Amino acid sequence: MTVPPGPTASRGAFVVFEGGDGVGKSTQVDLLVRRLEAAGHEVVRTFEPGATRLGALLRGVLLHSDAGDVGARTEALLYAADKAEHLHEVVRPALARGAVVVCDRYVDSMVAYQGAGRVLDPVEVEGIARWATEDLRPDLTVLLDLAPEEGLRGLTDPDRLESAGLDLHARARAFFLALAERDPGRYLVLPARRSREVLAETVAVRVDALLSADADRLPR
Amino acid sequence: MTVPPGPTASRGAFVVFEGGDGVGKSTQVDLLVRRLEAAGHEVVRTFEPGATRLGALLRGVLLHSDAGDVGARTEALLYAADKAEHLHEVVRPALARGAVVVCDRYVDSMVAYQGAGRVLDPVEVEGIARWATEDLRPDLTVLLDLAPEEGLRGLTDPDRLESAGLDLHARARAFFLALAERDPGRYLVLPARRSREVLAETVAVRVDALLSADADRLPR
Repeated sequence: MTVPPGPTASRGAFVVFEGGDGVGKSTQVDLLVRRLEAAGHEVVRTFEPGATRLGALLRGVLLHSDAGDVGARTEALLYAADKAEHLHEVVRPALARGAVVVCDRYVDSMVAYQGAGRVLDPVEVEGIARWATEDLRPDLTVLLDLAPEEGLRGLTDPDRLESAGLDLHARARAFFLALAERDPGRYLVLPARRSREVLAETVAVRVDALLSADADRLPR
Repeated sequence: MTVPPGPTASRGAFVVFEGGDGVGKSTQVDLLVRRLEAAGHEVVRTFEPGATRLGALLRGVLLHSDAGDVGARTEALLYAADKAEHLHEVVRPALARGAVVVCDRYVDSMVAYQGAGRVLDPVEVEGIARWATEDLRPDLTVLLDLAPEEGLRGLTDPDRLESAGLDLHARARAFFLALAERDPGRYLVLPARRSREVLAETVAVRVDALLSADADRLPR
């Protein structure tokens, strides 16, 4: 009797990096991707918002105000559409063929920044973001935590979001931390001030454990 | 003692026309708008999707496939973003200054067509559409009801939606009727085969009653 591979056998893994602007997410994404590729994994490196053709169009609208100042719900729904399309075009197909998806920002960023704006109810925003992403949860979210005044110091050419003021970024940080506390088994919260090598090694240990313990993984 | 005008005194009225393609919505919108303007009302004639600058951009994406075949949730969220922006830029400001807003399609069309596609849960789609529109309900929705094979017969140059097949349009019709049955006090369901003059007169009687009985109006 042949047994078809179970749903976990080739479902890949979904690792997300979250945190404020300037905390070093893209550096850590780079280091993890390189390490996983060297170990022979198929890796899909991606990001939100703006990774699909549609998403790039929407990101342009949102960050550079081509359509004027859109309403708060409009903005949230456009971010949600970006997420839905990214899941549909990139994340789902990659996981389905067993790849490791490493993504810079996901649902938490949407909840944190939209919630931090104080106009929308963060619980409702999370509901929209979860619907957009078919409630697909990452296997692991690495939260790089840093006081916003430290993270923003190194940035040049800030876009609209980054110039929105320290208060907003401080509130976003609190949302990131609250989301991690709610589901600690799926999060790795790291102080982003540590050296990039130490951070990368800590992440690598956790991701290696995740990939070698496939069968024990939390259900998505 | 002076009493400031209550919230109903200058809140305007919101009248929506719904129904399948080719049932004569735009003709009836024309006739109602002309009549209301002749009676001295400020009237804002509008439509969904695509009435705002952002909405026109999104409508182009959705109807003419500039971004390829987007996912079902992506599509629904883009329609929802269009609705949110239309409410924010057009409908709310017009109602706030006491205008009568006459709108060609609204939440029901989104529920009917997205639901008719059989991919998404219509209850979830309605939740997204209601969130997008801050749960603002029309004072009156006129549903022009017609068997889709009759409505589509007269159309030339159908866009993507209109060429999607009779089955989809038949399911959409059933959704329109179900939404009307759920809240009969806010709906006027008319057989669209009647002459345009008879339809216009029936609508006018109902709208006149609505505008003259401002204080008795159902809460939105």
